[in-house]
Amino acid sequence: MAGNSIGQLFRVTTFGESHGPAIGGIVDGCPPGLHISADELQQDLDRRKPGTSRYTTARREADEVKILSGVFEGISTGCSIGLLIENTDQRSQDYSKIKDVFRPGHADYTYWHKFGIRDYRGGGRSSARETAIRVAAGAIAKKYLKEKFGMEIRGYLAQLGPVAMDKVHWNEVNNNPFFCPDPTKLDALDAYMRDLKKEGDSVGARVNVVASKVPVGLGEPVFDRLDADIAHAMMSINAVKAVEIGDGFAVVEQKGSTHRDELTPQGFSANHAGGVLGGISSGQDIRVSIALKPTSSISIPGKSINLDGEPVDMLTKGRHDPCVGIRAVPIAEAMLAIVLMDHLLRHRAQNLDVVCNTPDIARLQDE
Amino acid sequence: MAGNSIGQLFRVTTFGESHGPAIGGIVDGCPPGLHISADELQQDLDRRKPGTSRYTTARREADEVKILSGVFEGISTGCSIGLLIENTDQRSQDYSKIKDVFRPGHADYTYWHKFGIRDYRGGGRSSARETAIRVAAGAIAKKYLKEKFGMEIRGYLAQLGPVAMDKVHWNEVNNNPFFCPDPTKLDALDAYMRDLKKEGDSVGARVNVVASKVPVGLGEPVFDRLDADIAHAMMSINAVKAVEIGDGFAVVEQKGSTHRDELTPQGFSANHAGGVLGGISSGQDIRVSIALKPTSSISIPGKSINLDGEPVDMLTKGRHDPCVGIRAVPIAEAMLAIVLMDHLLRHRAQNLDVVCNTPDIARLQDE
Amino acid sequence: MAGNSIGQLFRVTTFGESHGPAIGGIVDGCPPGLHISADELQQDLDRRKPGTSRYTTARREADEVKILSGVFEGISTGCSIGLLIENTDQRSQDYSKIKDVFRPGHADYTYWHKFGIRDYRGGGRSSARETAIRVAAGAIAKKYLKEKFGMEIRGYLAQLGPVAMDKVHWNEVNNNPFFCPDPTKLDALDAYMRDLKKEGDSVGARVNVVASKVPVGLGEPVFDRLDADIAHAMMSINAVKAVEIGDGFAVVEQKGSTHRDELTPQGFSANHAGGVLGGISSGQDIRVSIALKPTSSISIPGKSINLDGEPVDMLTKGRHDPCVGIRAVPIAEAMLAIVLMDHLLRHRAQNLDVVCNTPDIARLQDE
Amino acid sequence: MAGNSIGQLFRVTTFGESHGPAIGGIVDGCPPGLHISADELQQDLDRRKPGTSRYTTARREADEVKILSGVFEGISTGCSIGLLIENTDQRSQDYSKIKDVFRPGHADYTYWHKFGIRDYRGGGRSSARETAIRVAAGAIAKKYLKEKFGMEIRGYLAQLGPVAMDKVHWNEVNNNPFFCPDPTKLDALDAYMRDLKKEGDSVGARVNVVASKVPVGLGEPVFDRLDADIAHAMMSINAVKAVEIGDGFAVVEQKGSTHRDELTPQGFSANHAGGVLGGISSGQDIRVSIALKPTSSISIPGKSINLDGEPVDMLTKGRHDPCVGIRAVPIAEAMLAIVLMDHLLRHRAQNLDVVCNTPDIARLQDE
Repeated sequence: MAGNSIGQLFRVTTFGESHGPAIGGIVDGCPPGLHISADELQQDLDRRKPGTSRYTTARREADEVKILSGVFEGISTGCSIGLLIENTDQRSQDYSKIKDVFRPGHADYTYWHKFGIRDYRGGGRSSARETAIRVAAGAIAKKYLKEKFGMEIRGYLAQLGPVAMDKVHWNEVNNNPFFCPDPTKLDALDAYMRDLKKEGDSVGARVNVVASKVPVGLGEPVFDRLDADIAHAMMSINAVKAVEIGDGFAVVEQKGSTHRDELTPQGFSANHAGGVLGGISSGQDIRVSIALKPTSSISIPGKSINLDGEPVDMLTKGRHDPCVGIRAVPIAEAMLAIVLMDHLLRHRAQNLDVVCNTPDIARLQDE
Repeated sequence: MAGNSIGQLFRVTTFGESHGPAIGGIVDGCPPGLHISADELQQDLDRRKPGTSRYTTARREADEVKILSGVFEGISTGCSIGLLIENTDQRSQDYSKIKDVFRPGHADYTYWHKFGIRDYRGGGRSSARETAIRVAAGAIAKKYLKEKFGMEIRGYLAQLGPVAMDKVHWNEVNNNPFFCPDPTKLDALDAYMRDLKKEGDSVGARVNVVASKVPVGLGEPVFDRLDADIAHAMMSINAVKAVEIGDGFAVVEQKGSTHRDELTPQGFSANHAGGVLGGISSGQDIRVSIALKPTSSISIPGKSINLDGEPVDMLTKGRHDPCVGIRAVPIAEAMLAIVLMDHLLRHRAQNLDVVCNTPDIARLQDE
Repeated sequence: MAGNSIGQLFRVTTFGESHGPAIGGIVDGCPPGLHISADELQQDLDRRKPGTSRYTTARREADEVKILSGVFEGISTGCSIGLLIENTDQRSQDYSKIKDVFRPGHADYTYWHKFGIRDYRGGGRSSARETAIRVAAGAIAKKYLKEKFGMEIRGYLAQLGPVAMDKVHWNEVNNNPFFCPDPTKLDALDAYMRDLKKEGDSVGARVNVVASKVPVGLGEPVFDRLDADIAHAMMSINAVKAVEIGDGFAVVEQKGSTHRDELTPQGFSANHAGGVLGGISSGQDIRVSIALKPTSSISIPGKSINLDGEPVDMLTKGRHDPCVGIRAVPIAEAMLAIVLMDHLLRHRAQNLDVVCNTPDIARLQDE
Repeated sequence: MAGNSIGQLFRVTTFGESHGPAIGGIVDGCPPGLHISADELQQDLDRRKPGTSRYTTARREADEVKILSGVFEGISTGCSIGLLIENTDQRSQDYSKIKDVFRPGHADYTYWHKFGIRDYRGGGRSSARETAIRVAAGAIAKKYLKEKFGMEIRGYLAQLGPVAMDKVHWNEVNNNPFFCPDPTKLDALDAYMRDLKKEGDSVGARVNVVASKVPVGLGEPVFDRLDADIAHAMMSINAVKAVEIGDGFAVVEQKGSTHRDELTPQGFSANHAGGVLGGISSGQDIRVSIALKPTSSISIPGKSINLDGEPVDMLTKGRHDPCVGIRAVPIAEAMLAIVLMDHLLRHRAQNLDVVCNTPDIARLQDE
């Protein structure tokens, strides 16, 4: 059934396949009065865009977004915003060979068995290409949250295969093609990726996203908790297999005396919780971490079956990122922005004040 | 706004505070024709019930569930099912001391700042007591899935503090108060918990849940993916801070050649994906793992502030589980059942066959 | 699928059958800080209650509502509010005869064919008894709207069979068992009802509801228009077959020069539109009119069939209102209140001011 | 908040303003396997298209719909379907004069007061132009319902001002520009419209829609009843002020012995109910009637105010239909199709059979 929407009050609905004429979406619920231009959305889209470095897919897409409605003379009207990105570099001929086989690790098998039909060109609807519209929609949310509340939503590559970052220098993140916050690791990343490409293999990654200056009070217990909705949004990103809030899995071995963030008149003395208590934002930084699997599109042959259930040897050609986790950074930021925006509106519906002045001693530092 | 519902077609809505007269819920969307009795729901409720061992809270609740509607002569009618559990052991006097202070690590601070009012008795709505209704509702879903499709949804304690289980013997899980699947670890668990109680501290845990004989095709891309909805449901459980599907965070260091589950005419040759590809179930076991934080209600004093922002020393009295993760096992099973039930109905809406015969070579073994 | 909820942000979900142990509901999304007591809800319930006059069903129900959650020390907490009314006068024995037959004009036939099972006692879920919870939930909405914005939501019987009211004296409505606003018609109503009872027949009615001091701006185009949601809510009341906003069907023969409500610096010069323009409230009175069919439970024999499709002669016994439209007045008020409350919250979510000061020249007068 | 969607499982979301670059929408939840082409959607769009006769607006729009996704090699894939219609004849210059004034009877006043900003060109989002996408989406639903169940959804003009139709000849409806089912009235319609144009005035209309061969069992009590959702969908059409199901307002004066449709072994002996009992379809024809107000865009001057609240004399120029009700016929059909499609999917979710074989003695005849 209808599963292509996210959000209740700030609601994003998308359509489009990898090799169709266009992808697009509708942002419903954006408050009126926000200055929005296609150029601004384009900035985040360009960060996600394929073909920007030798580490990402060679597919070249302009990814030029058009705003078709909901913005009048540069200002949002409160009506639904139509977004459109035409697909320009489709190369459908690349994909005809995989028409009758299921690529291992892909959604080919499940789409086929669910729907009995699939657009096999480039993964069709299951392609990560769809996430471009998420980024455009997220850019609208980001702008609103920043402009009205000073909220900042930023992500970075925390680990790529064995290479884990040690430090977070926020102002370095956008200076390299890896969204890497630790410049001392750039050589290691470069070397690792070169080897990977030689092998024809791919690798997983960890991406962290942090929202700062979040108002206290966002989240609606008991099911639509802020953290539950974040988990949903993050796990809806292609290739994501795990989500952590705050200390995440480290809590398994923690004791209560360590984990509970004590309160002082100056604010919280730590942020193990990741900015959410009882499903409601505490005013501290929201800290989210996600794991992205290695893409299954690699040039090492693998076993699979065809539509008749007969064994075949597969070798995925086409142009693919050896680490899809890298380009996931702006996508994860967009999803967090969409969830926060939605919950901000939900909070405000009850005529509750939006308060942003919580002191936050434990805020993630950029040393 | 309205956040007390989960599910689209199989929709569970709950109400009730820890120390109010009752907790309850409505299950809307249960198909007609299912045999349901309060006794059957009670079986799962008894597994979650407090006061069953010296390792869980001493609060004693009968947790007796009543079915008020939607079942006629023992059979579901397709109409909404009303569920009610009266609170019998409320002891409100225990809680009057915490009226004006925020217990560190609890939802006191966030509920107060969000709503400007809170039912402080036992955590009010933020108490895990609310999950009893989830278990009752989940038992309905479990029964339907088992009866119609042979689906089996089972959980166990995978780790408690430093004690990690090595083996999974499914038939041992319900033979001990820990939901522990590895009998060789029972002594270690017992010793660890005894020490913990002496310290007055608490500890985190990891719980795994597995759904077997899941039909192929459940899940609605691109936002309402099966794994995204599982992540949402799991993160909505009190104290959960992380969720993994399949290999979870281990994928960060995996290569594509390892991670992708190859296909053979006999079925998948591995299950790194955890039974979900492209957001749709593959027919393999759904493997979910969650992390539960240590409860913040411990008898070691901690720093906090009162409503006026002044520093106070807190010492949480009352009756609390030293490891809330243990009792989370039936809750996690219930949430997984609710999500699968919801997606089964969503799948069927499109007149798609429900197919359960996928060979599953990699199914989790009980050796 | 799940169809027992109404509203997005102020969401009411109900359960319960005519002859089950209880009916109940959950109100989710009520803002915190509202003084609510069971006594206040009871006042509207008592207006709807059966057995209050010789013109309504002889069934006697205390209809005593209990608030089980969401209200702490008399004040709403922002958490879900559980409502419960126990069924005390059930007399199941009355209904065993209709177990195997379909009463003409009732939902027996459709429930049976939809679900393959039905609780035949008193109509089960299809009984108007369910509306008691709507009235209780609506009373919460009414109180909020009145207290915060001065909104007034009032209904009256506009026509009963051939007896149409000529004038609307608001302060007469609750002084008679008919909710009749025109005292000159009371004798005619009384005579008509006496004759009807003698015949053993029933009759339809028209009920009007008016909301005054409605803020400008409520309603979300293009599908969730205020008038569209009002139409939905009204048509969801048992026995309602038609809904009008403003001039309703009279517009068919109107010209544009007559219908359009001109604007002057002092306000609108008329209210043909019924307070809604383009799906958004204009600040004028919302005027709604509904038609309720005559109940099919009459003591005049009728033709029908049994479960085997064989012809039977039916004679509905039991205790029934000869005009169900009368008791629909508080129900219609409740539904209008629920819709306005929901849209008020939706409006406010976008940080839009709630403005109530529109001059309204054309407001319905009580001369 | 987000209000631009309709339907739960067959969900239509739209965007676009009268004078923006394009209007569009997303149809989410269409089952896979349906043959769909833009040409087929175009047929219904052409019936709604402006500029087809001298009785409708002179605006000329190609209204050419493009399918951007969700259809692969002519067959629906189960993924979201993107629809786009470019606006070609926009003439924005016509509208600059009304920038600072509120046209009486239009949504100008309410959009302005709600949002604080409005796209004044041609009514912006409040323009009926938006309904073109409804027609395209409805054509998909219509095709599915017809192909899989033989359902037929057809509308006609029942009354235009004082001219009421006496007979319904279905095969005449599409032979004249009025969707008039009674050829004996064509001259009267023609004369009336000519006079109306001379006066510069407009008039209201009544449109009837009938769905035949509807399966028994569609509709989800107690709030999402089939008739309640039909009322919502119909009232969401621009200019609609009233909705009737079956006998509608005539029930006010009916007696129960007349209204209740008796059952015989051969089927229902009448259809006063309009095909819905207890909110669930009975298998009889669904009969719906709606009233459309006269457009307020007329060339007779009217009083209004400007943004500063000062009085102005308004004279609406531009190109407008003297009776918007005429072109509402395909729109009303589309909305009924969307609701029935949605409820068909909802019904099927519970694994309930879709049964279409109810004998229907009272079906509306075309003599």
